[in-house]
Amino acid sequence: MAAMKWWGWGLEGVEFTHADKPELAPFIEQRIGLDVARPIAPPARFDDLDVPAPTLPHGLRAALESAVGAEHVSVDPLDRVVHARGKSIRDLVRQRRGDLPRVPDAVVRPAGEDEVTAVLRAALDADAVVIPFGGGTSISGSLEAPADERRPVLSVDLGRLDKVLEIDEHSRLARVQAGVFGPHLEEQLRARGYTFGHFPDSFTHSTLGGWIATRSSGMQSDRYGDVADLTRGLRVVTPAGTLVTQPVPATSTGPSVREMVLGSEGRLGIVTEATVQVRRLPQERRILGYLFPTFGAGLAAMREIAASECSVSVTRVSDAPETQFSFATRKRSTPVDKLKSKALTTFLTRRLGFRLDEMCLSFIGYEGSTGHVAEQRRAVGRIVKRHGGLCIGSSPGALYDQKKFDTPYIRDFLLDRGVAADVSETAMPWSRLTPVYDAVTAAGHAAFARLGVRGYLMCHLSHSYHGGACLYFTFAFEPAPGSDMLAEYDVVKTAIQQAFVDNGATLSHHHAVGTEHARWLEQDLSAPGVAMIEALFAGTDPGRNLNPGKIV
Amino acid sequence: MAAMKWWGWGLEGVEFTHADKPELAPFIEQRIGLDVARPIAPPARFDDLDVPAPTLPHGLRAALESAVGAEHVSVDPLDRVVHARGKSIRDLVRQRRGDLPRVPDAVVRPAGEDEVTAVLRAALDADAVVIPFGGGTSISGSLEAPADERRPVLSVDLGRLDKVLEIDEHSRLARVQAGVFGPHLEEQLRARGYTFGHFPDSFTHSTLGGWIATRSSGMQSDRYGDVADLTRGLRVVTPAGTLVTQPVPATSTGPSVREMVLGSEGRLGIVTEATVQVRRLPQERRILGYLFPTFGAGLAAMREIAASECSVSVTRVSDAPETQFSFATRKRSTPVDKLKSKALTTFLTRRLGFRLDEMCLSFIGYEGSTGHVAEQRRAVGRIVKRHGGLCIGSSPGALYDQKKFDTPYIRDFLLDRGVAADVSETAMPWSRLTPVYDAVTAAGHAAFARLGVRGYLMCHLSHSYHGGACLYFTFAFEPAPGSDMLAEYDVVKTAIQQAFVDNGATLSHHHAVGTEHARWLEQDLSAPGVAMIEALFAGTDPGRNLNPGKIV
Repeated sequence: MAAMKWWGWGLEGVEFTHADKPELAPFIEQRIGLDVARPIAPPARFDDLDVPAPTLPHGLRAALESAVGAEHVSVDPLDRVVHARGKSIRDLVRQRRGDLPRVPDAVVRPAGEDEVTAVLRAALDADAVVIPFGGGTSISGSLEAPADERRPVLSVDLGRLDKVLEIDEHSRLARVQAGVFGPHLEEQLRARGYTFGHFPDSFTHSTLGGWIATRSSGMQSDRYGDVADLTRGLRVVTPAGTLVTQPVPATSTGPSVREMVLGSEGRLGIVTEATVQVRRLPQERRILGYLFPTFGAGLAAMREIAASECSVSVTRVSDAPETQFSFATRKRSTPVDKLKSKALTTFLTRRLGFRLDEMCLSFIGYEGSTGHVAEQRRAVGRIVKRHGGLCIGSSPGALYDQKKFDTPYIRDFLLDRGVAADVSETAMPWSRLTPVYDAVTAAGHAAFARLGVRGYLMCHLSHSYHGGACLYFTFAFEPAPGSDMLAEYDVVKTAIQQAFVDNGATLSHHHAVGTEHARWLEQDLSAPGVAMIEALFAGTDPGRNLNPGKIV
Repeated sequence: MAAMKWWGWGLEGVEFTHADKPELAPFIEQRIGLDVARPIAPPARFDDLDVPAPTLPHGLRAALESAVGAEHVSVDPLDRVVHARGKSIRDLVRQRRGDLPRVPDAVVRPAGEDEVTAVLRAALDADAVVIPFGGGTSISGSLEAPADERRPVLSVDLGRLDKVLEIDEHSRLARVQAGVFGPHLEEQLRARGYTFGHFPDSFTHSTLGGWIATRSSGMQSDRYGDVADLTRGLRVVTPAGTLVTQPVPATSTGPSVREMVLGSEGRLGIVTEATVQVRRLPQERRILGYLFPTFGAGLAAMREIAASECSVSVTRVSDAPETQFSFATRKRSTPVDKLKSKALTTFLTRRLGFRLDEMCLSFIGYEGSTGHVAEQRRAVGRIVKRHGGLCIGSSPGALYDQKKFDTPYIRDFLLDRGVAADVSETAMPWSRLTPVYDAVTAAGHAAFARLGVRGYLMCHLSHSYHGGACLYFTFAFEPAPGSDMLAEYDVVKTAIQQAFVDNGATLSHHHAVGTEHARWLEQDLSAPGVAMIEALFAGTDPGRNLNPGKIV
């Protein structure tokens, strides 16, 4: 797996474009006042960066080289800069400016658990800091060393632990090394007829170990479960030795050690391997598009589906602003498409009484045998109809399915043009969805007003559970002239996050705490909850060598 | 809720009898050599017990009385003895002998969270030990104070916290006080059309707080989820104040604090309240009986059901010894029943080629709309048929459903007659089921042989998951003449538990660690896993006031 751009998402040369989406430029112009044709502000040139020389004591370097081989201990400046941060807006803006953090002194690439153990041993012996690195996609600041860290800092890149070691077909469990990237994992499983079923937005550039360390959730998690549900057994190299939990489906062994490692962001050790649930590839897989007259109607339908006897793989409803954004990203359409679209619009407005500015786009996914899929579609169709919704077939869903991993590139497109964009997502009980949505919308727009900017805020429900759901907000705005983009981002982000915790929603459904959300941890978990996490970290890592400063 | 017998299961005057089960006495005689008509060895008389006087410093007593009212601080000897232990065989044998443990100095009954807080405050101020008490059904030694505990010991009985405080119907969540007993919880929910769906064997005498503290699982957990799945929000009074976690369906706030409290057996604090998932009472509920030619065929069918598109509420298969025991507990049958039974036997043996000594009884439950139940029955029926099984209708299932909470009384019936009986259950991946079953069977019978006793060992699969299942073993034997029953029990129990952890199974699926299973914790979780739990406990309860000695 090639490294991502040091200043942005994805591989060099891959980028988002508006050129094939005729409605997008006018939409952006109208909503946030940005002329996409304006000159692009390129990131700093790498050669102009002032990358500090590595501070790697001779003994430590020798021990690391002995552990993994000299060719896998890198002090290359680009390598170190790529490993210095994740991909939050805070990370990207500073990287683009050439404002480097405490850059790791070395990137170390062990090939297996023995080597990971030797690396950790060497690091602890030298009182160095160890930051595990998967794909580097964190948007919560989980990868950056504290600015004032004076000890040597090592980024331990797990990319060489990339194998599916074993599939226990009888138990439908796979033993997998933690450094495997999403596509490579699916490829190895698919060859045997299986899937892990975990497809976060970051899928193409993130790893199993990263998903575990952050409690990731994917687009089909309504069916497959979040990564916490899928992860059954763990191997974690810790200061006290290798932690091994059994891949049992349930256990009554006191406070769950498995659940302590999930979401631990490297603070307890380095996850080297997990035994995870896999499922047979489904006979059929289909994502259908639906339209609802209002966001409320869409949410109500999802709530009813979640408690019904239906089983679905994806439940997603965009609010009206996100629906309008989605329509604005349509590619150039044929005359036939245009006619169809016009006929649909007429039908929606004249026959169903939809208002185009309130209408909401939804996707519902189905997987399984052909008969099962057909039956679930019918049953869901009845619920959708009760809430005034309309199925618009499989083309929009197929398009969404193809393009779903391209979304992170849009932020670079906007940053290139001086526009800030980021996301905040949360989960809450069903009864809190509307209050949270209303509070976040009000808080976000109040923040835009305070800054004097034209901001755009949009939202979708991304996951449904029996007792609640995830709401995923995206915001964008052009900072006021002469202002600091990150200071203004902070105003908006803070307003949204505070609206979450003030209204019974959690600080994040699946993006972890890192440093970005740590401010809200006590409001979310209460002081005794934070103290329990602190006790766990302090007891496991008394020297604070393991990714210090994250979560608490 | 009246207290259970101080020496046995359930209420005074309720007991198991063989009198209405004509086949049972001969079965027991034949299998373990016990003549059930032998004279009963009664437990010690309570008046003959040497109950130590309570050691309750004046200041502590005054503080407790001020916290909860004098009438709710009990130093009554019977009350204290009832609260001294749970209901493991180790507990019951010693109670029956009059061999008392470190009896609590007082039983304190707070009425709400404020009172719990005041009780804990008073206890910590006086350096007393606090042992939370729900229904007292623990069979893992989670309730007994350490023998050498010199500080005052308080049993905090949560029985007055017994209300469903609120049902959020929109979110299908109920806010419930932790001391509510199973039947009272269901009664309060049923009045509003809901069910919690949690029915452990101990249901009639156990509480929500107890289920949470031990990671309980119930008979319909295949549908509703284990208590860990059902519990969304928690309130726990800890030394650092009240821990509050939000009732969100998922969250990415670092290591899960909710999952630290689940299974914590009072070592982190006193659970006062939980927000739990509830479901609408199903339109139809049905448990069908099935017969399989062998245990292996039954397990294979359950494994296939678990990964199929079917949804069921109960999956249970008994092995041949347990099947024979079940049949031996049938009540006196009518001449018509006898004819039917004979016809069935002929059909099974002549037409299907079943061997009566290998045949296995199974129950599969269905819940939901009438249409859903019918459809699932058909789909499951096809899987059962593929594995050579036969549906025998709803009467056996209805009987099982009625009698399921009577099982714990059988142990007292046997203890009355000098026979030891207990259970050990575990979970493992599907591929480990047969190896574990074989290893446990061999280990159990080897232990019987070593003791020179005629023992009976039987097993059922009690829960199915995508990646594995729970096997639940029951054993009984009459100790060798002149031997110590508990010493011999220990030989058998140890052999079975060791076979679990030696073969990839966990020390318990849903009965917790307590003191009974603590010996196997490190083999199950590895030393670093145990160290993490220790760090959590030490940091949260530095004075070791909270149920010391349990789990680790």
